Amino acid sequence: MAGRTEPTEILRSKIRIRNPLLRNLLSEFLGTLLLLFVGTSIVAQFILSHEKLNTWIQINVGWGFAIAFCVYATAKTSGGHLNPAISLVMVTFGRLSIAHFFLYSIVQILGALLGSGLMYTLYYDAIHSINITQREQIMLFCSYPPDHLSWTGAFVDQAIGTGFLAFFVCVVIDKRNKIPDVVHPLFFGFILMMIGMAAGFNLGYPINPARDLGPRILASILVSKEAFGAMNGLYWIAPAVAPLFGAVFAAWFYHIGFGAHLPEIEGERRDLIAKEESALPLKQFEQ
Amino acid sequence: MAGRTEPTEILRSKIRIRNPLLRNLLSEFLGTLLLLFVGTSIVAQFILSHEKLNTWIQINVGWGFAIAFCVYATAKTSGGHLNPAISLVMVTFGRLSIAHFFLYSIVQILGALLGSGLMYTLYYDAIHSINITQREQIMLFCSYPPDHLSWTGAFVDQAIGTGFLAFFVCVVIDKRNKIPDVVHPLFFGFILMMIGMAAGFNLGYPINPARDLGPRILASILVSKEAFGAMNGLYWIAPAVAPLFGAVFAAWFYHIGFGAHLPEIEGERRDLIAKEESALPLKQFEQ
Amino acid sequence: MAGRTEPTEILRSKIRIRNPLLRNLLSEFLGTLLLLFVGTSIVAQFILSHEKLNTWIQINVGWGFAIAFCVYATAKTSGGHLNPAISLVMVTFGRLSIAHFFLYSIVQILGALLGSGLMYTLYYDAIHSINITQREQIMLFCSYPPDHLSWTGAFVDQAIGTGFLAFFVCVVIDKRNKIPDVVHPLFFGFILMMIGMAAGFNLGYPINPARDLGPRILASILVSKEAFGAMNGLYWIAPAVAPLFGAVFAAWFYHIGFGAHLPEIEGERRDLIAKEESALPLKQFEQ
Amino acid sequence: MAGRTEPTEILRSKIRIRNPLLRNLLSEFLGTLLLLFVGTSIVAQFILSHEKLNTWIQINVGWGFAIAFCVYATAKTSGGHLNPAISLVMVTFGRLSIAHFFLYSIVQILGALLGSGLMYTLYYDAIHSINITQREQIMLFCSYPPDHLSWTGAFVDQAIGTGFLAFFVCVVIDKRNKIPDVVHPLFFGFILMMIGMAAGFNLGYPINPARDLGPRILASILVSKEAFGAMNGLYWIAPAVAPLFGAVFAAWFYHIGFGAHLPEIEGERRDLIAKEESALPLKQFEQ
Repeated sequence: MAGRTEPTEILRSKIRIRNPLLRNLLSEFLGTLLLLFVGTSIVAQFILSHEKLNTWIQINVGWGFAIAFCVYATAKTSGGHLNPAISLVMVTFGRLSIAHFFLYSIVQILGALLGSGLMYTLYYDAIHSINITQREQIMLFCSYPPDHLSWTGAFVDQAIGTGFLAFFVCVVIDKRNKIPDVVHPLFFGFILMMIGMAAGFNLGYPINPARDLGPRILASILVSKEAFGAMNGLYWIAPAVAPLFGAVFAAWFYHIGFGAHLPEIEGERRDLIAKEESALPLKQFEQ
Repeated sequence: MAGRTEPTEILRSKIRIRNPLLRNLLSEFLGTLLLLFVGTSIVAQFILSHEKLNTWIQINVGWGFAIAFCVYATAKTSGGHLNPAISLVMVTFGRLSIAHFFLYSIVQILGALLGSGLMYTLYYDAIHSINITQREQIMLFCSYPPDHLSWTGAFVDQAIGTGFLAFFVCVVIDKRNKIPDVVHPLFFGFILMMIGMAAGFNLGYPINPARDLGPRILASILVSKEAFGAMNGLYWIAPAVAPLFGAVFAAWFYHIGFGAHLPEIEGERRDLIAKEESALPLKQFEQ
Repeated sequence: MAGRTEPTEILRSKIRIRNPLLRNLLSEFLGTLLLLFVGTSIVAQFILSHEKLNTWIQINVGWGFAIAFCVYATAKTSGGHLNPAISLVMVTFGRLSIAHFFLYSIVQILGALLGSGLMYTLYYDAIHSINITQREQIMLFCSYPPDHLSWTGAFVDQAIGTGFLAFFVCVVIDKRNKIPDVVHPLFFGFILMMIGMAAGFNLGYPINPARDLGPRILASILVSKEAFGAMNGLYWIAPAVAPLFGAVFAAWFYHIGFGAHLPEIEGERRDLIAKEESALPLKQFEQ
Repeated sequence: MAGRTEPTEILRSKIRIRNPLLRNLLSEFLGTLLLLFVGTSIVAQFILSHEKLNTWIQINVGWGFAIAFCVYATAKTSGGHLNPAISLVMVTFGRLSIAHFFLYSIVQILGALLGSGLMYTLYYDAIHSINITQREQIMLFCSYPPDHLSWTGAFVDQAIGTGFLAFFVCVVIDKRNKIPDVVHPLFFGFILMMIGMAAGFNLGYPINPARDLGPRILASILVSKEAFGAMNGLYWIAPAVAPLFGAVFAAWFYHIGFGAHLPEIEGERRDLIAKEESALPLKQFEQ
């Protein structure tokens, strides 16, 4: 293996962070930054083109792939949460301490804020020359409630939407469901696509306190304080808090209703290997 | 494996249901509930946004992923039928008793009813403030025939649509086609997407007696008795009964026309069969 | 293994066709029948809903999945050609005799004809109550050229479109590209989606003589002789003949330009097995 | 293995190019040609149908699959760059020499030019009979800036878009992320879909100097010198140069921020590394 002399391996030997906490915080920070850079750009393309050069399906599919590939980028270090609600679920699963949860959340929010700032760079010319309302300008960054929605409705919406996410994430990562590691991030993306088609109508499914709050702070600076103004200044609390409740509830609902009753795994890996062997290549065409 | 001390493993050691029938009924009940919660929300987003924030493609893709991930959640326990028509196919394959088929169907219908009730919670504000017709209110829950369709046409439509489903499910789970277990649920999702694009025009492809009947009962309470009123009160029978005929016919059509003639899997591949048999999503329940 | 007493295994022991040619002809016949049943239904949903409950993307995606799953149904017996142009490529690869090619083509055309007839059953009510032009009625079954297109243009279009198909099919099945068997049909589906987005504007990409000619015969009976009338009765020859040339040209273009120069495979399977072992399950969450 | 007597194997034994540089240049040339043939046809279907028989989603999905399958066709020989910006990243990774980078770029540009010429063949009749503006005629081949965009904005847009591509390509090919070889090209396709939904609004995401410059040269001949005229003749430089900067920056940003800190793959997993190294789509050329 000649890898040791590759430039990227030399870099690695020099700068590698070996402290797991520092490494994971960097991973969550940059991962959430990337996610929001891509994700808010998708929303911007939707809004700036007046919903023509991106319709709702692209919001769904684009964000789905954004989640998938940002999780691929971070899964092997921090686990690829990129969302305080998912981190909190991991706390209740005994896989993350409360202290680390707060640190994760802070860097996730900060990453989200900066990521949406980079979107602003990408679409700077367009934002300043295309006519969109102040409300739309805010929605480039974060959710803004429609007139039909009450605060309770917003809270319920965010709890349910994030609940869907946490529930299906638990389905995917439960080792007894035997879904190979390597497809987990892609499946998270498919799950997000589905959620955007089911629970996107009320608020546009932020379902991630960092994704909503971080960019909202930036919007209040770059656009208007009105970013925090909806529902007499109380709206923003719903997408910042409800996901935490919804995610934890749904994750444990999964384990109580489904996971706890799954049949035990035995001698699994051997079968699996044998199977992979006998199911590979060679197309058969009859003669 | 340090799993024994994880909170989810402790929970499991305490509440695990070891009676297969009870476990499977819980799985089918909650699985169908989840499926309809997500699925009717997708339809609601289509209707409430006046087909803008969800067009038909999202009905197809969203329901496809909903099937896929709800089957992933239930495949290892009950086999993930979530549909009486599929359960009946399993009866004819000798994998489920008639008695269990009725129990499965009851919990599937009940789960579907409650699942659509949860959709009502998610979109409560919207349903009560956005102007939609009574017919559309019913269609939030279940199918309603268009004017062009006769009762016979509805029956044929549901038999054909569910036939497509059962046929292609049989293709996927036939061990001689060597499609790995782990992708079965995802492929079921793709198949449902395809069916929604081919056989969705007449009735919106319920193709599942539980999916249609359960929520229809709730719609008759929450919206109007008219939910059961179409075609002089006879319409609802078509999507409740035709899928059973269509699915059984198509499943055996597969085996007569295709499956029976597949080349044998030889020698080195016995382990593959053994493995797949013990983990097939649509097997392994009946006791 | 208890499989021998399953009803489907009992059926198999009684009716299994062991003559490879008969079995393959049945497979190609029924596979093409299914493909056209699903496929023309997708087109019908597009036309009958006036391009609302199916837009062009669903033509692409729906047909893609239809190909994928009909090939899964037939791959292990006949190889899943479902298209005389692909069968002809196999003749030039020495995997099918000329005599068998003609037999394959005949059953493919017959299957396609009957499959589109089943679509007519599914949408019988709609076809007879929704107002569409005669041209659209014909297009439920087969392609019909737009005004801008010359006969040469139609021929070139079909040769190119089928060429794309054959080229990328050869990429996928070339064992030196190491794409596992089990994803071949799915990839064929993705390839067809892509072709429909690139080469669908002129004629709607039939790119399959059986798919176009079989249903055209039925359309000339059920709708009007005008099905064969376009371009002074010469149009139909283009989609019936050009695919054969395009496919063979493109398949050999692949082997001359790409396949012939691929590095040799050595000791491949051992590495692959080892790799699968080390890349399976177990999510890592840092603590 | 009876392969030696198959016609394609006989061809291979006669014409196989064993000089790696020649073989790789042929692979990059033909791969980029195919990519642009399919890709510009997708754009043409969008423009010629007045954005009806192809909406923006098909641009995204179609190009994504085009990348995926053109990389599958070329990955095992040249590594499937098909883009000078990716080739330059490989130079900085020590996997390609500067001299070869220039040769790669030249054949990529040439292939792109000819590929768009083949699109012109496919849509010759349509281009000459359907009414589109000169600007749209140019956009059949290459990007053309909208009025809202400054030159700096165009440069930033292309640097960011190509940066997304290079970043996520590095995520996928980093062996420590353990994403199996065989899905790399498909994932590149998904990544391109995502980028088209996030960074497509300004310029239509060429993010590939060969893809933009090659067809632009042909457009200046077939359509009008105005192909090079936008922004006082300076526009074309942005998509031709900015991708190189963006890609290299993003690739190293990945390694500095993520790749360098990934946990080591231990003991039993050495074979995994060895395997992946010998078959990675973006490796294994340079001599």
